Amino acid sequence: MTNQQLFLGIDGGGTKCKARLEDAYGNLLGEGLAGPANPVRGFEQTVESIINATEHALVEAQIDNSQISNINAGLGLAGVNLPSFFQKINQWQHPFANMSLTTDLHIACLGAHNGQDGAVIITGTGFSAGSLTGQNHFEIGGHGFVLGDLGSGAKLGANSISRALEFLDGIAPGSDFIEAVLKQLGCNNSVTVVEKTINKKPAFYAQFAPLVLDFANQGDLIATEVVNIAANYISRIGRRLLADKPLRLAMIGGISSPIRKWLDEDIQEQLSAPLQPPEVGAILFARQQFSK
Amino acid sequence: MTNQQLFLGIDGGGTKCKARLEDAYGNLLGEGLAGPANPVRGFEQTVESIINATEHALVEAQIDNSQISNINAGLGLAGVNLPSFFQKINQWQHPFANMSLTTDLHIACLGAHNGQDGAVIITGTGFSAGSLTGQNHFEIGGHGFVLGDLGSGAKLGANSISRALEFLDGIAPGSDFIEAVLKQLGCNNSVTVVEKTINKKPAFYAQFAPLVLDFANQGDLIATEVVNIAANYISRIGRRLLADKPLRLAMIGGISSPIRKWLDEDIQEQLSAPLQPPEVGAILFARQQFSK
Repeated sequence: MTNQQLFLGIDGGGTKCKARLEDAYGNLLGEGLAGPANPVRGFEQTVESIINATEHALVEAQIDNSQISNINAGLGLAGVNLPSFFQKINQWQHPFANMSLTTDLHIACLGAHNGQDGAVIITGTGFSAGSLTGQNHFEIGGHGFVLGDLGSGAKLGANSISRALEFLDGIAPGSDFIEAVLKQLGCNNSVTVVEKTINKKPAFYAQFAPLVLDFANQGDLIATEVVNIAANYISRIGRRLLADKPLRLAMIGGISSPIRKWLDEDIQEQLSAPLQPPEVGAILFARQQFSK
Repeated sequence: MTNQQLFLGIDGGGTKCKARLEDAYGNLLGEGLAGPANPVRGFEQTVESIINATEHALVEAQIDNSQISNINAGLGLAGVNLPSFFQKINQWQHPFANMSLTTDLHIACLGAHNGQDGAVIITGTGFSAGSLTGQNHFEIGGHGFVLGDLGSGAKLGANSISRALEFLDGIAPGSDFIEAVLKQLGCNNSVTVVEKTINKKPAFYAQFAPLVLDFANQGDLIATEVVNIAANYISRIGRRLLADKPLRLAMIGGISSPIRKWLDEDIQEQLSAPLQPPEVGAILFARQQFSK
């Protein structure tokens, strides 16, 4: 394969990093998947995941690794809404021809509305939300696992484990759901629960999100309470975004589909389907930046 | 000063480490204070704080540093209810003649009831609770900043900052309290709030606990909500401890005094004053272990 201009879209978050490689005409050449790429959780792991995902996409495209220097890359990463983390990644001695960096939210928005204006809610391992109007994009919610992210998979999981600990302490009731949490942890007392869960990253807690959503669907009262905390938060965020009358509002991420039915009805009714995934948004972003 | 048997009590937590030095007859020789000593937050810092606090106590006692090897030390530390952290500290090549290790809760209980049986609630930077009946001691609550500690100063502070972020996002109301939180942070937008607060230790968040308690006392609705979450948790813990009919129940730690009036009345009524501070409990523990 001769030298050619390549466009790469990277979607990096707390659980995984996706890469999509296209030629100058918008033809898909290859895709790649790698580990977490959230710089708040570590710079080295982030750039390693970006490179790994890119190399996998090159392999799938049957393009030699050396062609990485012909790539125009658009990166959308969690955490880079914080200027210090944006700077750190932006100063990375990357191997691409060009690299343009923005938030995971920005590329998600570009993807969800196929490059047009609109608003988006992302709920996966973490949480964020915002909207894009021309060159302006504004972001709300999220703010990380410790102080925010109430609508995230990680918080759904962490709140489930907290409820299990309150049950083991004898200060809150149990249920089939609580038993299932303890079974998934392989624990039957609070000391082992804490030993297995302390100092873990959000992706660990997010593993428990499918469980709490399943049990809430079956009517378990405790699971329903935990899901309603997240759903109430997402509904409030949705209402805030709709106040600005965006052209479209989409919800994406691993938790978006199962939690949708738990949102307030007025929010559910105004959700539009996402048109393209974030990694396509990242390539749209790369093309926008390249054509400037 | 000639060689003599010395007894040292250490009370180590997320914010500070206290040392108390006594002679064989129970006379106070000196006291010392140093930085954080919670092994969950770091082994090196923990043993450094223990040594620093001990050296300060020796200086105050006008006893040469070399006498550290004549000390019988009783250590009560946060976090060592978890076997892995207990083991790590217990295997420390300490400079004392003897070292006995137990939880911060155990020494607090021994202190609060002057060596007699009873139950205790500790609310400071972190949270824990439990009771002592003869050789049995059982612990509940707490479980660390991420999954538990709802009744702690750190959670009071973190929840205050979370409420401020929801206000800045336009999804929750503001108040004088919210303005005071933002002023203490020196921030007026969510990005700078997150930059200043992300990846911080519990002691950072606990700095905001006096503010939320002050504003709750003045009737601020948001501050009152935040304080009530903590108070409700502590009341549930208190009720659980009282179910075992302990001889006495005491509440100690930096948050205990200001939050007491917010607890359910039945719990408030059954609280007894702590008789001695935890570091005295640690010396009682050292003497018990030494006389075995």
